[in-house]
Amino acid sequence: MSYGDAMKARVRGEERRAEIIGAALEVIAERGYRGASLSAVAERVGLTQQGLLHHFPTKDALLVAVLQERDRWDAVPDPRWRTDLLVSLVEYNAMRPAIVQTFSALLGESVTEGHPARAYFTERYAGVRASMTAVLRAEYGERLPNGLTPERTAPLLVAVMDGLQYQWLLDPESVDMPGAFRDFLHLLGEPVD
Amino acid sequence: MSYGDAMKARVRGEERRAEIIGAALEVIAERGYRGASLSAVAERVGLTQQGLLHHFPTKDALLVAVLQERDRWDAVPDPRWRTDLLVSLVEYNAMRPAIVQTFSALLGESVTEGHPARAYFTERYAGVRASMTAVLRAEYGERLPNGLTPERTAPLLVAVMDGLQYQWLLDPESVDMPGAFRDFLHLLGEPVD
Repeated sequence: MSYGDAMKARVRGEERRAEIIGAALEVIAERGYRGASLSAVAERVGLTQQGLLHHFPTKDALLVAVLQERDRWDAVPDPRWRTDLLVSLVEYNAMRPAIVQTFSALLGESVTEGHPARAYFTERYAGVRASMTAVLRAEYGERLPNGLTPERTAPLLVAVMDGLQYQWLLDPESVDMPGAFRDFLHLLGEPVD
Repeated sequence: MSYGDAMKARVRGEERRAEIIGAALEVIAERGYRGASLSAVAERVGLTQQGLLHHFPTKDALLVAVLQERDRWDAVPDPRWRTDLLVSLVEYNAMRPAIVQTFSALLGESVTEGHPARAYFTERYAGVRASMTAVLRAEYGERLPNGLTPERTAPLLVAVMDGLQYQWLLDPESVDMPGAFRDFLHLLGEPVD
């Protein structure tokens, strides 16, 4: 194979991987990870199951790629953020129920025995709580107006974001996710008008 | 069959149903609902799959029984409760990770397409938000100290309880679920010492 042909093959391979990951995100949103079959993912991108295994040798390898993809596109809150950026993230999530559904389904499954995403979520939450602590400290200092420390407030901030996602996915007409999240930030700081 | 024999058979049938429901709770905690097989449940109670189908004709029928059982044992917050009873509920949950795991796995799955527990959770959350609104109104009147109404605070209270369960199930050493929930109640009302 010439250098040019090899480059083209590589680009095609990466495009194909991206397609497969996109299809896997959809199938997980619809069925969860345990309910997702490689053949359903393969079918969605016009591959045989064997063809898919060429790109991802196991179902778990595909899950790892999905989670990496998620972390690439989905802002993991950064210690340098301010709380108003968190509001923007929640507003953004409210415009993309499919990705929130994939995440919420995987989080739910991750607590079951021996789930391949468990370590990912456990580490991710430790990291997100640490980032949120830094965000709150930058905004409020060592104590929030109400007296709680940033460390003790961070798990609540994370819990509200996750818990609201379930209520909103189940009943989007009744639950104003960004509005509720802004209300939570009011609880942390200034009184509501 | 004599009346006495019929009664005995009925009691045996009910005992057997209770055993099956208990086994189903365990299997769902371990594998989720979609990952749970009727044969795994049957095996755990020493029945054939055919024998299990005599008690529950479909997997969905068994799920309905599991959810009903949950509502019988698990306090659905009542409008007459006070917030200190919510703290007791969270403390109680922290002593029974298995049942919290079953619930959290089912909630996660319920947002996927056509899940048989979706309607149950959607209705349950509408009911729980209404109950929480009543609890908050009884405690604080029409406005919480911070200015939010009970209606706007209720979804946050529910979200915090659910979201903390995931963080705690994933990392029980790092997350003090009852302590964090008490912190949230401090955010609603009195400052922390």
